[in-house]
Amino acid sequence: MREESLLVKDLGEHGLLERLQRFCPSGVVGDDGAILATDPDKSLVVTTDVLVDGVHFSDRTTTAFDVGWRATAANLSDLAAMGATPLGITIGLSLPGEKTVNWVEEVYQGMAACLQLYQTPLVGGDICRSTVASLAITALGEVSSPRAIRRSIATPGDAIVVTGLHGLSRGGLELLLNPHLGTNLTTMERDQLIKAHQRPKPRLDVLPYLAKIPEEIAIAGMDSSDGLADAVRQICHCSGVGAEIDYSSLAMFSGLIKLVGQKAAGDWVLHGGEDFELVLCLTSEYANNLVRELGKNTSIIGKITKKPEIQITNLDGFMDSKILNLNKGFQHF
Amino acid sequence: MREESLLVKDLGEHGLLERLQRFCPSGVVGDDGAILATDPDKSLVVTTDVLVDGVHFSDRTTTAFDVGWRATAANLSDLAAMGATPLGITIGLSLPGEKTVNWVEEVYQGMAACLQLYQTPLVGGDICRSTVASLAITALGEVSSPRAIRRSIATPGDAIVVTGLHGLSRGGLELLLNPHLGTNLTTMERDQLIKAHQRPKPRLDVLPYLAKIPEEIAIAGMDSSDGLADAVRQICHCSGVGAEIDYSSLAMFSGLIKLVGQKAAGDWVLHGGEDFELVLCLTSEYANNLVRELGKNTSIIGKITKKPEIQITNLDGFMDSKILNLNKGFQHF
Repeated sequence: MREESLLVKDLGEHGLLERLQRFCPSGVVGDDGAILATDPDKSLVVTTDVLVDGVHFSDRTTTAFDVGWRATAANLSDLAAMGATPLGITIGLSLPGEKTVNWVEEVYQGMAACLQLYQTPLVGGDICRSTVASLAITALGEVSSPRAIRRSIATPGDAIVVTGLHGLSRGGLELLLNPHLGTNLTTMERDQLIKAHQRPKPRLDVLPYLAKIPEEIAIAGMDSSDGLADAVRQICHCSGVGAEIDYSSLAMFSGLIKLVGQKAAGDWVLHGGEDFELVLCLTSEYANNLVRELGKNTSIIGKITKKPEIQITNLDGFMDSKILNLNKGFQHF
Repeated sequence: MREESLLVKDLGEHGLLERLQRFCPSGVVGDDGAILATDPDKSLVVTTDVLVDGVHFSDRTTTAFDVGWRATAANLSDLAAMGATPLGITIGLSLPGEKTVNWVEEVYQGMAACLQLYQTPLVGGDICRSTVASLAITALGEVSSPRAIRRSIATPGDAIVVTGLHGLSRGGLELLLNPHLGTNLTTMERDQLIKAHQRPKPRLDVLPYLAKIPEEIAIAGMDSSDGLADAVRQICHCSGVGAEIDYSSLAMFSGLIKLVGQKAAGDWVLHGGEDFELVLCLTSEYANNLVRELGKNTSIIGKITKKPEIQITNLDGFMDSKILNLNKGFQHF
């Protein structure tokens, strides 16, 4: 194909991002947010997300309130993923003239409700006319420079900690799209799945526990917004290492198994996405401390290895151990 | 009209923004950017702009390179308008799959070229699929807290300084839309008008001169992105003061008069917009120093008054002195 006729859709999001990275200084990008060293001790962390009507949300599964909540939660999660405490967010809102003012106000109410949980102010933004509604949110945070969590600093021997359950958001989406499913679930299980999808909570509550870990102990990591397996893959790719994941150590939510069975549930745990938990790599001593302190649903799921491949072991008999390609992204089961 | 059926287009951008301001803490919004006091001495300034294909730019008048340049310049200008030195910008890009990769890369090249002039890094962003191309740019800067320029701190007696010529961007747009016009202009005049529209320069170069002014001398101001008259109106509105503008003191670019005549040129100087100069209010002693130091095309165009109205005097005979409404925005001539 000739270069000048190459279209965005031919290249895809990842291919395009790769091309555009040359416009950014190296070292600044590659994490959930960019780090700007504004001070000898403190760094500023900034992260931007764009959500488009019909692509990232739809009236079918997401109320305006939840659009605001989810967009805010996703951005605050990017800050949590860098170890950064939020300072504020801005929003750039594009709107067709035919959207109701009610819809817009409900988006803001959702944002405000999520922000309030983390005492974070909305510090302005921009509104403009467009043919499609979209939200561009930028979140700002700060982190003590040596405590910044990065994808690129995992070391062989590190334990891999996840801060909570996975697959629930994907399960909730399934129930919203197909309300006739999951009749065998209890009301609580149903609610928990749907809530996980509609009102995810960024894990900023983990940061005070990380602050107790000596700063010379590096913590690699990111959030699991694109799936748990993708997070492990990204960390390994950026750190030039591999990982061994013990499948039997992955906590499974009972409602998820009841909804789609053991095998698909396992797939969603690994690849479902949008659970917004943290995936952290650190020495096993401090990893164990963290699991003890955070408690329920926080667990060690494997370890970082020298060989640059990801091996998933103890696959419960329905599949042999599996090796995942570091560069090409995971193939779903 | 019933509240729940009220549409965005019924309320308009300003009406909607006013409603949504209640979601922001007071004191944070109302300027070109938001101020976050992250430090006792320094404040972080953040500003967001969204530009939409077909609304803010079009292939007819703006190359992809210039889309990137203008968007970047507008955001850096918002920082200059607060007295803030840029730290970095992020971009959230929405793209239809049918855009060429070339177009996207040229947008980035335009951004990079503008950023390079001000040694500012692009620190990341997001790309996503949409039905319409749009750029959401967030610029971050920092300012010594007492030196922050705000709209709300103008005082009666202050002189009003503009840092350069106005109306040129509007003139350039006219020439781009109607290339058969302006045959009486010299090539240099033509180029200057078109360049003013395509490659505006944020006035960050003014900041070192402002840094020399003692911090106890308040500087009120903003940029003239929405027009010179609108800037004066906004400053007066936010400060609860009025202004007297001496029309005969407004510098007029000869090419503009040749293009559309004295009267329309005057209209564009006041209301054309997108010239991205700074409109600053400070004591006349320091205002005079500033004019002397910045030189060419910087001038004092009037003064801040106690009576909350804006009077334009010495209208060159083609109109009597004019009083402009502070709240409703200017009526064009």
